[in-house]
Amino acid sequence: MTINNTSDLNVKDLTFIKDIKSIAIIGTNEKRNFGFLRAHIKHFEGKVYAVNPIYSEIPGLKDIEVYPSLLDIPENTIDYAYILVPAKIVLSVMDDCVEKGVKLVSIFTSDFSDSGTKEGIEREQELLRRAKNKVRILGPNGMGLFYPKLGISWTTIFPKTHGNISFIGQSGGLCFLTILGAAGLGLKISKAFSYGNGADLDFVDILHFLINDDETDIILGYVEGIKEGRGQDLKKVLDLNVNEKPIIILKGGQTKAGSIATKTHTASISGENQIWKSLFDQYNIIQADSLEQLLSLALLIERYGYFKLDNAAVLSASGGYGVILTDIVEKAGINVPSFSPEIQKKLDSHFYLVGTSSKNPLDLAAIAFNSQNVITIMNVALSDENIDGLILDLPSYYFNADIGFKYDPNMEENLVKTTTLGYKHNKPVIPIVLRLNCPIDKERIFTKILDNNVPVFSDPLEVMPLLPKISKYSKNRKSKN
Amino acid sequence: MTINNTSDLNVKDLTFIKDIKSIAIIGTNEKRNFGFLRAHIKHFEGKVYAVNPIYSEIPGLKDIEVYPSLLDIPENTIDYAYILVPAKIVLSVMDDCVEKGVKLVSIFTSDFSDSGTKEGIEREQELLRRAKNKVRILGPNGMGLFYPKLGISWTTIFPKTHGNISFIGQSGGLCFLTILGAAGLGLKISKAFSYGNGADLDFVDILHFLINDDETDIILGYVEGIKEGRGQDLKKVLDLNVNEKPIIILKGGQTKAGSIATKTHTASISGENQIWKSLFDQYNIIQADSLEQLLSLALLIERYGYFKLDNAAVLSASGGYGVILTDIVEKAGINVPSFSPEIQKKLDSHFYLVGTSSKNPLDLAAIAFNSQNVITIMNVALSDENIDGLILDLPSYYFNADIGFKYDPNMEENLVKTTTLGYKHNKPVIPIVLRLNCPIDKERIFTKILDNNVPVFSDPLEVMPLLPKISKYSKNRKSKN
Repeated sequence: MTINNTSDLNVKDLTFIKDIKSIAIIGTNEKRNFGFLRAHIKHFEGKVYAVNPIYSEIPGLKDIEVYPSLLDIPENTIDYAYILVPAKIVLSVMDDCVEKGVKLVSIFTSDFSDSGTKEGIEREQELLRRAKNKVRILGPNGMGLFYPKLGISWTTIFPKTHGNISFIGQSGGLCFLTILGAAGLGLKISKAFSYGNGADLDFVDILHFLINDDETDIILGYVEGIKEGRGQDLKKVLDLNVNEKPIIILKGGQTKAGSIATKTHTASISGENQIWKSLFDQYNIIQADSLEQLLSLALLIERYGYFKLDNAAVLSASGGYGVILTDIVEKAGINVPSFSPEIQKKLDSHFYLVGTSSKNPLDLAAIAFNSQNVITIMNVALSDENIDGLILDLPSYYFNADIGFKYDPNMEENLVKTTTLGYKHNKPVIPIVLRLNCPIDKERIFTKILDNNVPVFSDPLEVMPLLPKISKYSKNRKSKN
Repeated sequence: MTINNTSDLNVKDLTFIKDIKSIAIIGTNEKRNFGFLRAHIKHFEGKVYAVNPIYSEIPGLKDIEVYPSLLDIPENTIDYAYILVPAKIVLSVMDDCVEKGVKLVSIFTSDFSDSGTKEGIEREQELLRRAKNKVRILGPNGMGLFYPKLGISWTTIFPKTHGNISFIGQSGGLCFLTILGAAGLGLKISKAFSYGNGADLDFVDILHFLINDDETDIILGYVEGIKEGRGQDLKKVLDLNVNEKPIIILKGGQTKAGSIATKTHTASISGENQIWKSLFDQYNIIQADSLEQLLSLALLIERYGYFKLDNAAVLSASGGYGVILTDIVEKAGINVPSFSPEIQKKLDSHFYLVGTSSKNPLDLAAIAFNSQNVITIMNVALSDENIDGLILDLPSYYFNADIGFKYDPNMEENLVKTTTLGYKHNKPVIPIVLRLNCPIDKERIFTKILDNNVPVFSDPLEVMPLLPKISKYSKNRKSKN
C-alpha cells in the first residue's frame, strides 16, 4: 500500500469507534415503540442510557436508567449518542454532547439541509459550529452506525453476526435493504454507515476509515454525490486502495430524473456522471446497476475471490434451456468454447444416453438423474485448462417430490454437492436454481447451496451481467500488481 | 383478418384435436413408473388404453386395459397415441396407427434425425412414409401434446386448469419449465406442443393452428429454427395474424455457441439471426431474451392488455431506493416526468412529513405506514393524464411482523390493494416486492398480489426491460389498425 500523498489529506478520524463502551439514546419515544432503545440494548455489552425529559422509566424496559438530560447521566463520559429529538432541539442536545465528551453522534432527525430551506441549511451549519469539531456526526437525516461486533444497531431485526463486508450508504432505507439482504445471502457485515446529509462525516471520511479498517475486506457503497471540493480528497483516499480491497459502488442519480430526485432526497448534487465513470475506471471500482447487483457482486467476490471468466462451460439438464443459457452467456461476452480434445474424450465416455450432448454446452437430459455421474462430469469439465468456470442449470422441479424423478435417492444431496466443486478446482461454479416453478423446492435448494457457501442465483439474466464486471476488475487488479 | 394468400399455403390441419375421445399409450414401462400412462388417465374423460406386449396388467393401475398391440384394442378407432417404444419399433407401431385410424401421435422416442446419424435421418424419413399423411405426428424426440381442457398431459404434475395462452416448443424440457412456470404465475395454458424434431407437424403448422384457434389469445413460442423451404409458409401464416393475437418468441441459437448447440439438440439450423430479427420486426413479434422474460411478457399482456408506458410515476418507500429505481426506469427508456401542475398540487396536500417527496419519484418514507393515504396518493398520481403507469416499490421487510411497523393494522391488506389500482385507471401498475430480504413475507405478499391478478416482480432489472418491448408492440399494433 502506498501512503504518500496523505499528508495533506483532509479526512476525519473514526478509528475510535472500536472503543465505544457507553451509549445514550436521546429522545426515544413511545410512538416508535422505543425501538431505537430496544435495538441498542439488545446486543451491546456496555452501558446504554435513555435520555428523556418525559419518562422516568421506559415501559417494558425497567432496567434502563432514564435521565432528563445527557448531563444528568452519572458517568463521566458517554462515547456514543443516538439522537432522535425534534430538529429544533438537536442543537442544544449537541451542546450537551460536547460537554459530556461524546465522541460520535448519529442524528436520525431530518429537516436540516435535506429540507432545502434556508432555515434547514442554517440549522445544519449551526449544528456543525456547536459540535466544535469535538463530536463526530453521522447525519442528520440518517440511521447512523451499525456495528454488530459491538452490538450497535438501530433496529432489533438486524443480525448480531458480523463479518468482513462494510457498507457506506447515505440513505437509511438502503441500509435496511442492504443489511437485511446481505443476511439473506449469508453475507456478514462488519459495519454499515447511514450518514444522511453528511454534515460532518461523509463518504470520503468513511471510505478512508474502511480502507484502513482491518475488520473490513470488501467495501460496498451507495453514493448520490459528494460535496463541492471533496473530489481531490476522494482521489487521494482511493490512491491508498490501489490493488487492495475491492470497492463496489452503486451510484444514485445517473439519469436526469434520478439526478433531480437526489436533490430532494439528500440535497446531494449527483454531479457529472462522466466524471464518476472516469473515477470508477481509473480506480478499478466495480459499478453495480442495482442494489441487488451490489449484493450479488459482494457475494461472488466474498466466496470466489477475484476471478476471470472468459471461457465458461455450460451444463444444463434440458437441451433447449442449455441453448438459451448459452445465448445469454455469450451475449454477456463470455465464450462457451469447445473442450480441449483430451477432456472431450473423457467426457464422451460418461454420456451413455441418446438425446444428450457431451459437447459444450453439456446437455445432460436424463443423465442428471444419475447424480454421481453429474459430479464426475463436472469434475472433468472443470479440469479443462481452457475453461475458467461453469454455469450450472438446476431446474427447481427436479427437486420436487411429486415429479417422480426418484431413481436416485441421493440426487438432491449430490446435486447440491456439485455446486461446491468450484472450490476444488479454484474456478467459479455459478448454479442457477430456476425461480420459474416449485418455489418451495427452489427455496430449500437455494438455502442448502447458500449454506455450503456457494453463491446461487435464480435467473440467468440476473447473474450474467455481473461476471464480466468481476472479470474486468480482476484483470485490472492483476495488471497493476 | 386478411385471408388472401392462403390458397397456396402449405400447412397441416390440427383442428381435429378438439375431438380426441380415445388415447393409447404405447410402450409405457416400469422404469418410468408408468408415468406417461398415469398422466393421461389422471384427467382425460375419454378412454385410455395401455399397449404393452410384456405386461398383462399395469401394477397399481388394475382398471386400465392392456393390449399387446394397438390392433388388439377392441374399439374401432383410436384418436390419439402416445409412443415411447424404442426407436426401431416405432416404425411398425406407425403401421398399426395407420391401420387403426389414429389421427395424431406424439413420439417421445429419440434417435431419429436428432441423432445426426444417417441411420437416424433415414429412420425419420421412413417414419413419414409409413404415416402415409394419414397420421399427424408430434415428434419424434418431443413430449407431444398438452391440452388440459381435454385432460391430455404427459405428466401428472401439470395443472388441470386451462386458459387462453398457448405455447409452441420444440424442447420437452422447455415445455416443462414453461407450463410449470406459467402455473406459478397464475397463467393458464390452452395448449402446449413439444414437437421435437418436427418431422411432420412443425412450428409453422402449429402457429397457423393457434392463430385460428378460438381457445388461444396469446401465442408463446420457443424456436431454434425452421426447415429449409418453410420461410415463405411462415410469412403467409404471420400475414394472417397482423393486428390479431400477440406472439412472443424466444429464439434459441442467437449466438455462435448457441447456434452450434441447436444442431446437437434438435438438428435445427438456427439460421441467420438477421433474417429472424427482420421477421420479428416486420410482423410485430415480441422477442423475449430468456424463458423468464417469455412468461413475464405473457403475464403483463394477459393482465394489462396492450399498453404504452412512455411516462411513468415511480413510488418508493425509501428515497435512496427511489433514486436507484428512477435510474433503472429511465435507463430502460421510460421517462419519469414531473406531474402536471394541478395533480402536483393535489399530491402536495397528502405529503405531511419532512423527509418525504411529493414529486416524481414519489418518496413516501414513513407515509407508507398510513396505507389509506398510499391508496389516495396512487389514485391521484394515476389520474395524471401525463402519466401512463406506475412503478411501485414494496420492500418485503415492510410486511415482516418482527420489524414493528405496526401503527396501521390494515397496512398489508391496503398495500396489496394499491397494486390493483392500475385496473381502475386502465394503466399498468408494476409492483416490485423486493426479493432481497424476508423471503417468507416476500412469498406471501407476492402470492396475494398474483391472486389479485396483478403481475408482480421481485427485482427492478427483471421487469424493466420488458416494458419497452410491450410499448413498442402496442404502438406498432395501433399504427397498423
